[in-house]
Amino acid sequence: DDDVRHFVRCVGGDAAGVVVSTSATATSSKAADGAGAALDKYNVDWMGKYHGRSRVAVLPKTTDELCAIMSRCHARNLAVVPQGGNTGLVGGGVPAHDEVVVNLGRMNAIVSIDEDAGVSVVEAGVVLEELESAVRARGMTVPLDLGAKGKCQMGGCVSTNAGGLRLLRYGSLRGSVLGLEVVLANGEVLDLLRTLRKDNTGYDLKQLFIGAEGTLGIVTKIAILTPRAPTNVNVALFGLDSFASCVELLKLARGRLGEILSAFEFFDRESLDLVLEQLKGTQDPLAKPCPFYVVVETSGSVKSHDNAKLQAFLKIVKNKRVIVDGVVGKDEKHAFALWTLRERISVALKYAGAVYKYDISLPTARMYNLVTTLRARLAPKFGSGVKVLGYGHLGDGNLHLNISCAEYTDALESAIEPFVYEYTREERGSVSAEHGLGIMKAEEIIYSKDAKAVELMGAMKRALDPRGILNPYKVLPAATRAAALIPM
Amino acid sequence: DDDVRHFVRCVGGDAAGVVVSTSATATSSKAADGAGAALDKYNVDWMGKYHGRSRVAVLPKTTDELCAIMSRCHARNLAVVPQGGNTGLVGGGVPAHDEVVVNLGRMNAIVSIDEDAGVSVVEAGVVLEELESAVRARGMTVPLDLGAKGKCQMGGCVSTNAGGLRLLRYGSLRGSVLGLEVVLANGEVLDLLRTLRKDNTGYDLKQLFIGAEGTLGIVTKIAILTPRAPTNVNVALFGLDSFASCVELLKLARGRLGEILSAFEFFDRESLDLVLEQLKGTQDPLAKPCPFYVVVETSGSVKSHDNAKLQAFLKIVKNKRVIVDGVVGKDEKHAFALWTLRERISVALKYAGAVYKYDISLPTARMYNLVTTLRARLAPKFGSGVKVLGYGHLGDGNLHLNISCAEYTDALESAIEPFVYEYTREERGSVSAEHGLGIMKAEEIIYSKDAKAVELMGAMKRALDPRGILNPYKVLPAATRAAALIPM
Repeated sequence: DDDVRHFVRCVGGDAAGVVVSTSATATSSKAADGAGAALDKYNVDWMGKYHGRSRVAVLPKTTDELCAIMSRCHARNLAVVPQGGNTGLVGGGVPAHDEVVVNLGRMNAIVSIDEDAGVSVVEAGVVLEELESAVRARGMTVPLDLGAKGKCQMGGCVSTNAGGLRLLRYGSLRGSVLGLEVVLANGEVLDLLRTLRKDNTGYDLKQLFIGAEGTLGIVTKIAILTPRAPTNVNVALFGLDSFASCVELLKLARGRLGEILSAFEFFDRESLDLVLEQLKGTQDPLAKPCPFYVVVETSGSVKSHDNAKLQAFLKIVKNKRVIVDGVVGKDEKHAFALWTLRERISVALKYAGAVYKYDISLPTARMYNLVTTLRARLAPKFGSGVKVLGYGHLGDGNLHLNISCAEYTDALESAIEPFVYEYTREERGSVSAEHGLGIMKAEEIIYSKDAKAVELMGAMKRALDPRGILNPYKVLPAATRAAALIPM
Repeated sequence: DDDVRHFVRCVGGDAAGVVVSTSATATSSKAADGAGAALDKYNVDWMGKYHGRSRVAVLPKTTDELCAIMSRCHARNLAVVPQGGNTGLVGGGVPAHDEVVVNLGRMNAIVSIDEDAGVSVVEAGVVLEELESAVRARGMTVPLDLGAKGKCQMGGCVSTNAGGLRLLRYGSLRGSVLGLEVVLANGEVLDLLRTLRKDNTGYDLKQLFIGAEGTLGIVTKIAILTPRAPTNVNVALFGLDSFASCVELLKLARGRLGEILSAFEFFDRESLDLVLEQLKGTQDPLAKPCPFYVVVETSGSVKSHDNAKLQAFLKIVKNKRVIVDGVVGKDEKHAFALWTLRERISVALKYAGAVYKYDISLPTARMYNLVTTLRARLAPKFGSGVKVLGYGHLGDGNLHLNISCAEYTDALESAIEPFVYEYTREERGSVSAEHGLGIMKAEEIIYSKDAKAVELMGAMKRALDPRGILNPYKVLPAATRAAALIPM
């Protein structure tokens, strides 16, 4: 139709830039083949949990092209889903219905890498791992690392305020992102692309777009701190008797490893069992099974200093019997294998079947109670076919609670929700520590934010996207979204 | 009058909570005594540069009291200036005309210090140094340190997004502040006071108030990361031949001192001369005068490791002849004396007379060019009575440019401005790296932000303070402020 022809003009007549359903009524779904199949990769999330029915995906190559696309969508009141690597966990990056998909994957240039200043500028579609490789070659690193690094794109990382494995060391993207270029709902460009470490001239508008999941604007370019890479990395894996011991270990690690502690991750035996079962080449890291495991990573600049600190730490935790057993990665390959056990839990879960994923912030010391409480709640009704797994970023108070099962059922879902959210509210935690809200938790925001805060978010939405065309049905609850719309 | 009687009721009838001018027409000024004198400390900034004419200062003791005050001001359309320790440098914390001063100094409770989580919660009026003492006693530190620490208050620090001496190590307050309680323009409370490290549920509204200089709401409580204090701190002072050598030293420090580098400050000989001249008990730190000086601080957890890294660094910078001379603080007292030379420049400037202060972000390598360029510009007209000094946070790309003179004159001011701002815009820098805009630079925001960004800031102002009663005349340019007002 007219819009599609316009989009083709927007991307310079490049046929690869517009993917259209060949049937009049798009029927894309997990099972679909034929007409909607070409659009499936844009319509369906990687877990196969959320199925949109968009009839067109547009892939601009430049900011100008995107401006032209958005200008058209704004004028015609067409809803838009900005999409990155489609590795999200809350359905934020796929259409809810028939929104136009704007996929940033072809805006994938690394614009500049400034070694002296330790700052890189990239387009939104650059894959995290590609940026990491590019800056590593210059002795730098990206202050963000996560399981999806091979596929997730920087624009998506910024838009979800991705946390990941290095947050403990480098802090959140709110500090690491120095500047952004954003295309607004009406197709205008907001140029906040500076590479300054400090700038206190007015409100820090870029913060609005970090973590907004594409509901306030489309991030097109990013200036991000890329600090000097540590020259010496050690990885140790510990087996522990109880979650309380994991917390004690964290306290000792903070004190004894000080400035070189760069990751502190935990997982339970149930998680490890699933990895060993689902993933070839993995093996039990310690002689005897333990109920809990912790991966500690140190990163420093002088090998002998790091080793000395780690050895002193090991001595103390052994003497104090905080750990049952432990192993230090003896070389890079071994260290990688230890890390893999933690990092690949999420992949093992996917192989094992359906999975309900929750990403919760809780007071560190009581974090695991949610796992045991939920087990006790589900076991009588659902038996051993439903497994409750706990793992995550213990150093950041972030629990990844996963319920693995054969298939998604209403009975199971209603046994989990809203229980998990109510539990989290009681603890004054967050129902989404790092995954965002997307479509999955848009209504659940009330468990973490009070009514006044949600109302103000509506005001921000109204100010930036008065027609509500940007990633509708996501992040904000329906009532707030409706209130945010300015009547035309 | 009626409003004053109401304010007295708001603070529970406590006479100390409301300071009123005893004369009908307030005439507070630097020189004033008599009627307006009691209000001078609220009306005049610490530099004596900005003089308000407020007739009343209110000092609430609780959030509820402040809500009642704001509710009255909103209903009666009375303008309000939130005020902390009054240590600002851009006139952001004193009235421009006759606004009601709301001073947070009596809301000064440390609410909680959680040693395990490394998080403290404080009221806005807590003085930075008091918080530092309180957490130090528990082995923690505040991720913020600056010259005004003995007087500046936490609410003001957050509202100006204060940077200071430790930003290089701990990053900006945007990462360290975990939660805020804010009283909005209409007297409602916005409760964003969480102590979570990670929370991705909707837009991060607290970022709006960090650095907004009290124009969007009044910060009343703060949850802030208070990390484990380093057990071992070293300070070294270097003399260098050129600014290029300072930059080379920074590069080497980043590489060689790695994870323990905690501050990298520079000052020029002109700055040191002023300190030696104005401040008793100070002395030249090195045998021969040098044109540039750098203070390097390291903070780590194992003394022998830190010393070894520092010695290796010293050896390299001597061998490479990057430095002319250097000295390492041999004990705490000596280290403090070295730090003092950098930290007290600002005090020396105040003793020396009038001073024009500029706080600029620039590309690190070219930062000092602004100082030499301005010297060349001013010298022919103003001679040696006008001194141009350069110092600041070299590790953060932040130059404090100061022009010391006998008195403020229009001729001198117009020789400096807008030149300094235009220069900064050319370099794509920031006209306010860490001091904020206040009343001094409200119009100058255009040198750092484009028109679209300023327009959006106006939209934020409109959403949060539709009547424009919060800290008027500050941060936003007059045209934007006017456009932000919603007609009543």
